[in-house]
Amino acid sequence: MKSTILTVGTEILFGSVVNTNAAYLSEQLQLLGMDVMYHHTVGDNDKRLKSVIELSLKDCDLLITTGGLGPTEDDLTKETIAAFFGDTLEFHEPSFDAMRERMERNGRKMTPNNRKQAYLPSRATPFLNACGTAPGFALEKDGKIVMCFPGPPHELKDMWERSALPYLAKYADGVIFHKMIRTFGIGESALETKLLELIDAQTDPTIATYAKPGLADVRVASKRKTRKEAEEAVDAMIERIRALVGEYVYAENGEEIYEVLAKRLIGEGITLSVAESMTGGLFAGKITSYSGVSAVFDRGIVTYTNRAKIDELGVSKETLERFDAVSEEVAREMVEGLSKKTGSDLCLSVTGYAGPGGGTEEAPVGTAFIGCVYKGRTTVFRLEPGPNDDREWNRNRALLYMANVALRTLDGRM
Amino acid sequence: MKSTILTVGTEILFGSVVNTNAAYLSEQLQLLGMDVMYHHTVGDNDKRLKSVIELSLKDCDLLITTGGLGPTEDDLTKETIAAFFGDTLEFHEPSFDAMRERMERNGRKMTPNNRKQAYLPSRATPFLNACGTAPGFALEKDGKIVMCFPGPPHELKDMWERSALPYLAKYADGVIFHKMIRTFGIGESALETKLLELIDAQTDPTIATYAKPGLADVRVASKRKTRKEAEEAVDAMIERIRALVGEYVYAENGEEIYEVLAKRLIGEGITLSVAESMTGGLFAGKITSYSGVSAVFDRGIVTYTNRAKIDELGVSKETLERFDAVSEEVAREMVEGLSKKTGSDLCLSVTGYAGPGGGTEEAPVGTAFIGCVYKGRTTVFRLEPGPNDDREWNRNRALLYMANVALRTLDGRM
Repeated sequence: MKSTILTVGTEILFGSVVNTNAAYLSEQLQLLGMDVMYHHTVGDNDKRLKSVIELSLKDCDLLITTGGLGPTEDDLTKETIAAFFGDTLEFHEPSFDAMRERMERNGRKMTPNNRKQAYLPSRATPFLNACGTAPGFALEKDGKIVMCFPGPPHELKDMWERSALPYLAKYADGVIFHKMIRTFGIGESALETKLLELIDAQTDPTIATYAKPGLADVRVASKRKTRKEAEEAVDAMIERIRALVGEYVYAENGEEIYEVLAKRLIGEGITLSVAESMTGGLFAGKITSYSGVSAVFDRGIVTYTNRAKIDELGVSKETLERFDAVSEEVAREMVEGLSKKTGSDLCLSVTGYAGPGGGTEEAPVGTAFIGCVYKGRTTVFRLEPGPNDDREWNRNRALLYMANVALRTLDGRM
Repeated sequence: MKSTILTVGTEILFGSVVNTNAAYLSEQLQLLGMDVMYHHTVGDNDKRLKSVIELSLKDCDLLITTGGLGPTEDDLTKETIAAFFGDTLEFHEPSFDAMRERMERNGRKMTPNNRKQAYLPSRATPFLNACGTAPGFALEKDGKIVMCFPGPPHELKDMWERSALPYLAKYADGVIFHKMIRTFGIGESALETKLLELIDAQTDPTIATYAKPGLADVRVASKRKTRKEAEEAVDAMIERIRALVGEYVYAENGEEIYEVLAKRLIGEGITLSVAESMTGGLFAGKITSYSGVSAVFDRGIVTYTNRAKIDELGVSKETLERFDAVSEEVAREMVEGLSKKTGSDLCLSVTGYAGPGGGTEEAPVGTAFIGCVYKGRTTVFRLEPGPNDDREWNRNRALLYMANVALRTLDGRM
């Protein structure tokens, strides 16, 4: 079943609120095996509302709206939809009673406007609102369905689960299952080129690539009669993808690379300490964002000054002077000093120029050296500068590479 | 000028990505005094693309698109727009050269797909992409303007600032100037109550409050003939707001509280070191995200284990056993040990239970102790648990309070 999501609300058009309702509804519709063809957002304006309703119902069988059911006079969604379906609004006693009861319970007084909220299209199936005032509803005509929900996300979600899912059950068309493969170290174009044969031949499962800074994701989705069939089809396709680009894959359920690393450390009981200069503590911050990591994360040392590198990690003054604080040698002494001090199973260090200023001829802005000690062996990875000198971008990129160096080291691939 | 924002991308329709680009562009267009009438999202389908382009340009003079310019074969935005404007695509050498140069610099190989990205409508004004491969462009015909941008948010923002703002300057309708006042330690409702008289009487400047976790912002905006007039009106209103809630205000240009602190430290040459347990290095990471901070930030110590607290900061084993790692006493020993070790002008420590598990009767999940040494004086602030036990939420909240403790200490208000 083809569907459209229509958000009514000036706060979205002003940009002061991000449209998370549309993302939520899209996910929900997909789980029912329905295709989402459009998202639209309009303000409370009947002409524009009518235009998008017309456009949507020309192409689609199902239109879901959120917002525009509030008590203020500029809320026109219901009126416009009723008119479009040749229906009129009628006072709906049970919705009004539920609203009154709810407001009395919360010690709030009803306004005349609230009465207006209890008017629904006469042929509608009403949806009670357990979390707010405005009721929602579904209206059908000539094989087209419109469902209207209030705008506040928690009201929408509650009403969706209570009323919309049972209502839509009879229209659900198979089950969609998907997994998100995440890769590191290969650009989107190169990834696509390697997967070209699979992409060109795709019917079901479908394969789509997405670029993120430093990463590329592959979404594999299948729509089948049962979840089991869909899951098996996705897993079989993932096997084929892994055969082509497996060396770049670090997750197949959309996990962050830091989560993959943290879980691996926790699972295998490998202790970790980190010495950071360029990334200023963010790597420790990423790893410690996962619950349970306190069992394996010992400590982080953020050595921003030369003196801190000398004091905390035993980096030699001579090395700093001779090779510069951003050098392979300093990364090596940092990580070896950390390893000696902490005895952690895995130690990482990073030093680099985050920018925007700074950098040297040998190590321009964006360059980073990532040191690693594991099982008595030290390696230092040199990260070449990326395309821009943005500080945040460079720091994030170094963080991703640190995680990648750690994972590859644990795999014995570095 | 009436405008529409069109997002092209199946990942938005799938709900796997929230449409932050539309929110960003809406805000930007408003700053130019332009009204946003629609947001639309469609996938890479020429028929539906054409429908929404038609609808948009019937009502609006300006259409902004993001996405659909990638190297993959299903990207149809350019083709559809060129056809709609009776134009054809032509190879644009400078865009191709910039792309090639950029990819060579990153050590990436061009694929045949990349060449396709350098095709632009023949009458278009091209926008170079400084952060990615796909160029953008503007195309005008019969008083209608279409501007196309790549989908990745950082590419869009960079291109918007570099190319779109100068391009659109001639169409801006009056000048909107705004400032974002940021407050800490007062809820949105309490803030609104204190500002009620100003809010009720507002015409221009307008005043709007926004709640963020732990913070409340106030946007003051004015639309006048010249920037100078708008700026003066905003500044006069800010004076009135400060008279009412000045003690909670820490920024008036939307700066992050960490930025305010970092700038203050740099400006006054105050050196800083930090010892973090609960926040795992994120405070050091926040502070070091500002360029120039290396002159004042000495070091951070992330002492996650008890052993690390003892080794690195000289916290006594007895204190840890007697009072628990999350206690006022441990926060005090952490910060005093750090101060002794580093001699930094300002030292901060934090220990707390981030959750979701853990916590004690005396210090339930969400509790944090923030230690501070400045000018020979130690203070410890106890942060009481908030309303939930979410790890990220608790860590972020502790970070905000650390910055607030530092700023109030420097002000002699703590």
